[in-house]
Amino acid sequence: VNLITLTTDFGLNDWFAGTMHGVVLGINPAATVVHLTHGVPRGDVRAGAFALAASCRFFPKGAIHVVVVDPGVGGARKAIAVETGDYFFVGPDNGVLSWALLKETIKAIHTLENPEFFVKPVSATFHGRDIFAPVAAHLSRGVPIQAFGPRLEDWVPLPWAEPRVSANEAEGEVVYIDRFGNAITTLGAESLKSMPAGALTVSAGAGGQIPVSGCYSAVGPGQAVAVLGSSGLLEIALNGGSAAQVLGLKIGSPVRAIHGQ
Amino acid sequence: VNLITLTTDFGLNDWFAGTMHGVVLGINPAATVVHLTHGVPRGDVRAGAFALAASCRFFPKGAIHVVVVDPGVGGARKAIAVETGDYFFVGPDNGVLSWALLKETIKAIHTLENPEFFVKPVSATFHGRDIFAPVAAHLSRGVPIQAFGPRLEDWVPLPWAEPRVSANEAEGEVVYIDRFGNAITTLGAESLKSMPAGALTVSAGAGGQIPVSGCYSAVGPGQAVAVLGSSGLLEIALNGGSAAQVLGLKIGSPVRAIHGQ
Amino acid sequence: VNLITLTTDFGLNDWFAGTMHGVVLGINPAATVVHLTHGVPRGDVRAGAFALAASCRFFPKGAIHVVVVDPGVGGARKAIAVETGDYFFVGPDNGVLSWALLKETIKAIHTLENPEFFVKPVSATFHGRDIFAPVAAHLSRGVPIQAFGPRLEDWVPLPWAEPRVSANEAEGEVVYIDRFGNAITTLGAESLKSMPAGALTVSAGAGGQIPVSGCYSAVGPGQAVAVLGSSGLLEIALNGGSAAQVLGLKIGSPVRAIHGQ
Repeated sequence: VNLITLTTDFGLNDWFAGTMHGVVLGINPAATVVHLTHGVPRGDVRAGAFALAASCRFFPKGAIHVVVVDPGVGGARKAIAVETGDYFFVGPDNGVLSWALLKETIKAIHTLENPEFFVKPVSATFHGRDIFAPVAAHLSRGVPIQAFGPRLEDWVPLPWAEPRVSANEAEGEVVYIDRFGNAITTLGAESLKSMPAGALTVSAGAGGQIPVSGCYSAVGPGQAVAVLGSSGLLEIALNGGSAAQVLGLKIGSPVRAIHGQ
Repeated sequence: VNLITLTTDFGLNDWFAGTMHGVVLGINPAATVVHLTHGVPRGDVRAGAFALAASCRFFPKGAIHVVVVDPGVGGARKAIAVETGDYFFVGPDNGVLSWALLKETIKAIHTLENPEFFVKPVSATFHGRDIFAPVAAHLSRGVPIQAFGPRLEDWVPLPWAEPRVSANEAEGEVVYIDRFGNAITTLGAESLKSMPAGALTVSAGAGGQIPVSGCYSAVGPGQAVAVLGSSGLLEIALNGGSAAQVLGLKIGSPVRAIHGQ
Repeated sequence: VNLITLTTDFGLNDWFAGTMHGVVLGINPAATVVHLTHGVPRGDVRAGAFALAASCRFFPKGAIHVVVVDPGVGGARKAIAVETGDYFFVGPDNGVLSWALLKETIKAIHTLENPEFFVKPVSATFHGRDIFAPVAAHLSRGVPIQAFGPRLEDWVPLPWAEPRVSANEAEGEVVYIDRFGNAITTLGAESLKSMPAGALTVSAGAGGQIPVSGCYSAVGPGQAVAVLGSSGLLEIALNGGSAAQVLGLKIGSPVRAIHGQ
């Protein structure tokens, strides 16, 4: 597979994302580049990690996922490539790859140290262009992961707040807010299944008793609803508006699913 | 043709558009995906319909146009594919395809019901990923439109306000405002041609007597001008500024072209 | 090489960028289109020129760079194509190509006048779709540059403020502000090398004595730092914030590098 995805916090107003694309094509003209998103909030490693974890498995096997959310660029953090059962992952070793890697079978982790595969001179500020994009392009041409640098035993993890689940209640938190203002929570289907079947309601922020339903439009305009979303996680939405804004939800806001009669 | 275009209101800050791209490539690795725009205002079916109608005919024959502006996702609205003389169109049956379809020769309309062509499990909230993208990818591989579901007689139309044209005057309305603040109107070349040749002026919002000219820069900085735009419709522009903002124009604002002496 | 890059001020909220992509594929289905950026500020010829100059050389030889930042569209400015030792450049002759061309070996400059290679009817307002995209697509198919119109002797240049360099000081100005709020200056490595080795500090806007360092994270959060950036130019950054905003820097703000003890 000649497929490389790019996820960064570079935005689209400058030439950064397009330049990474150019570097890839200079090394592998047959590569297909998918711009997964360049809209990760600046330096927000957690948001980048979530975006990757929510989407990487919808790409064909063999895809090379490059993620550059890298507030420590040029500093002490390592640059790594990880080979898993299905994919390659390339990025800074600051946790941004970790939530995706948790669901993968790890085959090898290597640091990126071999300048033979870099764009030179390597700048201090744009490793997306000078290290990560060219390494991904060489990987896509079949260069073995061992060629890029020494083997590493483990990667830097990012903490994930596991929900607390009891007989009648599951408590998690908001982990991502999307462009629609939907607040995605850490509560997955399993957290909810352990509760007795029947009426569930959710409380989050200013939303007192939010009904759980199958789709956003199940409630009236301006009403909040909790839906098991496309990432397999419960999300709080508002029909026709921003749940995050109206209910005052932020990353880390507690969310409780309560089985009530 | 292995060409699929994507038009949505998903924005580019999350992984939604990129994930659709990944699903397409998983089914048809040879497909070319063009991101027509993902910046349709949230849930704005009319804006999505206009964007598609303004651009679809600039793509080569055989292209598959996917549009997902779908405030009723997971609800009762149908999902459809339409085969026309030149293209395929795929999206929710909520009118978002209709302004483009008005200019096409319809060959077949089918609902999308056959789960064989979906990404499973189908989520309640992201049919772009689970239904529309994979159906388009299968269409691009030659799966006949009949395979996706039962034939449909018609699609849901979106009202289009036809201009009122008299001997010396044509009255239409603003139908779209672009990123430059240009206000595109429903007045096409035909509406204007029925008036006697000679000086035309336009009135719209706070713009009293706006001259009609061939290009934006025909007037001084900060001045309003009406131009027959690239969609074949009269648009109100401001040299170096936003006509919509300065003149107070909104979707639906009346616009009159007057033949004067 | 079948590679075409697009740089415009069209934004991504409308169908403009995607439509250019479609026009290219209609003429050359084998072309690869890279969207370098469509986020150049509206009508900002200097920003477009800088984006192109900062990125064009990271694309493989033979690439065709199309730039449409064209406030005079439909007016008197010429449309041109330029063949250089390594690339083609296509755009309005308003200076937007000039900073990139300064670093290239010019082989031929031609105006775009032959309607045979245009999308017809040519609109007055969207030459990106009707002239620049189709010309680039025909170039990518091997149409010789002479076919598009008469030879031109020179292009319209954009002024570049050369730094003033003395024994202990170099004075330049801010030339571009990126999405992170980093202020890129006209001071290149050569300007700084002419000063005696040793401690350098920079003053810019409200930043009194900004240290020069190798990476953004060399200073504490909220602190300013000057870094030789990825374009080979000194840039003023703020760890975790926007240097432009906090220090009050704008395009044209003076920046002085001082050799101290």
